[in-house]
Amino acid sequence: MMEALSKNTIKLITSLNRKKERDESGLFFAEGPKLVDDLLNTFHCTLLIATSDYLSAHKSIKADAVQEVTKEGLKKVSALCAPQSVVALFKKPTYHLDYKTLGSQLSLMLDTVQDPGNLGTIIRIADWFGIENVICSKETVDVFNPKVVQATMGALARVRVHYLDLEKLLMSLKGVPVYGTFLEGDNIYEETLTSSGIIVMGNEGNGISSVVKKYVDRKLYIPNFPQSRDTSESLNVAVATAIVCSEFRRRINR
Amino acid sequence: MMEALSKNTIKLITSLNRKKERDESGLFFAEGPKLVDDLLNTFHCTLLIATSDYLSAHKSIKADAVQEVTKEGLKKVSALCAPQSVVALFKKPTYHLDYKTLGSQLSLMLDTVQDPGNLGTIIRIADWFGIENVICSKETVDVFNPKVVQATMGALARVRVHYLDLEKLLMSLKGVPVYGTFLEGDNIYEETLTSSGIIVMGNEGNGISSVVKKYVDRKLYIPNFPQSRDTSESLNVAVATAIVCSEFRRRINR
Repeated sequence: MMEALSKNTIKLITSLNRKKERDESGLFFAEGPKLVDDLLNTFHCTLLIATSDYLSAHKSIKADAVQEVTKEGLKKVSALCAPQSVVALFKKPTYHLDYKTLGSQLSLMLDTVQDPGNLGTIIRIADWFGIENVICSKETVDVFNPKVVQATMGALARVRVHYLDLEKLLMSLKGVPVYGTFLEGDNIYEETLTSSGIIVMGNEGNGISSVVKKYVDRKLYIPNFPQSRDTSESLNVAVATAIVCSEFRRRINR
Repeated sequence: MMEALSKNTIKLITSLNRKKERDESGLFFAEGPKLVDDLLNTFHCTLLIATSDYLSAHKSIKADAVQEVTKEGLKKVSALCAPQSVVALFKKPTYHLDYKTLGSQLSLMLDTVQDPGNLGTIIRIADWFGIENVICSKETVDVFNPKVVQATMGALARVRVHYLDLEKLLMSLKGVPVYGTFLEGDNIYEETLTSSGIIVMGNEGNGISSVVKKYVDRKLYIPNFPQSRDTSESLNVAVATAIVCSEFRRRINR
């Protein structure tokens, strides 16, 4: 049965654009059929709001509550310019990072990535290359920011994102190779790369912080071409992440 | 001497957010000291509008006209949320594409890339990897769109972007290898890659069009990891461009 969205529902969803409210309620939201379908496989959905078109195409929805709305009604809770057929509220997951996996897998560490689009794209890259854990500094943009959630294109359902004190974590690790990209690093194409370890990516403007840099024992550089030529000063952080992950995985694929 | 910006100047600059007006006037604009400085090296600047801070740090500016404004005045012509110290108008360049270079260099071809951020990032990647020519379908987003210009971070000054009928161009080429990424392609890490040729990248939603696909004689695929695993359906087009360009250049670097 179709009812208008209550004021409280509209207020709750729009409040989730802010980190403080997401933290207090333990909820986040996502929009669009492809993304919501991916997230429904992994996360606990407390409320799904959708048009009749979406609902007739999805007969069994795993959600605590389902409400039908008109396209007009959906606009009231959508952060997108062109609202799609569904908005859903999910419980934020709580992950535990088993430090042991850091010694046996490849993981990404983000030292204060600030742009939501960059974080979303990096999570999508991690998903593509089978990286299960992305460890963020506490200053990195919140992964449940709606812009990040949208930019992950569903990869958020398959990659676990942790917010930790990076120095504390790095200090406690023993024998785990820590890689990072630096202008003064060694040519990534020629270095020995291991099939497990941590790849650190830095902030958009400032790169890897001096605190974290101390723990990076393998400095890498993506060479520009030809190497003598004047070029851009750096690559976008998501682009650099993609190139580095591709190169690590290429070695294993052989 | 400081004067307020005239109504006509404000109208001209804001009109350049639209492609029609950019085409008619033959002008585009850019903002921010780093970007404007890069573009001043390459393009003809017809008007530079800047704060006194910028002007005292830049004693000789190659521009037809220079006007000093306050930070407040700059806001009136800025498309950015946080206007920086300078906005400049440039003449759009006209490039001639010498088909012969396509046989001796690596070039990128974009088959209807639509997102301004993606195009800007791809131009930055082209710059990093020494790709001088990017050939776009006429339906690709305009490179002089202010969002694209900003996203290139100055790489626009070093990469020539052409808008052409892709089929007509591809039909006329002989002996130039044409690469493209497809889900059914061959593992890029294992394929023979040449040091010259054309790399085609497709539209964000639809990939490479059927018309262009006919001319792609080397189909490549970026393997996900592990290959048996369910993952995102695809990589972002700028991310895929970065991985492909890196792999081509790695072979030459050896």
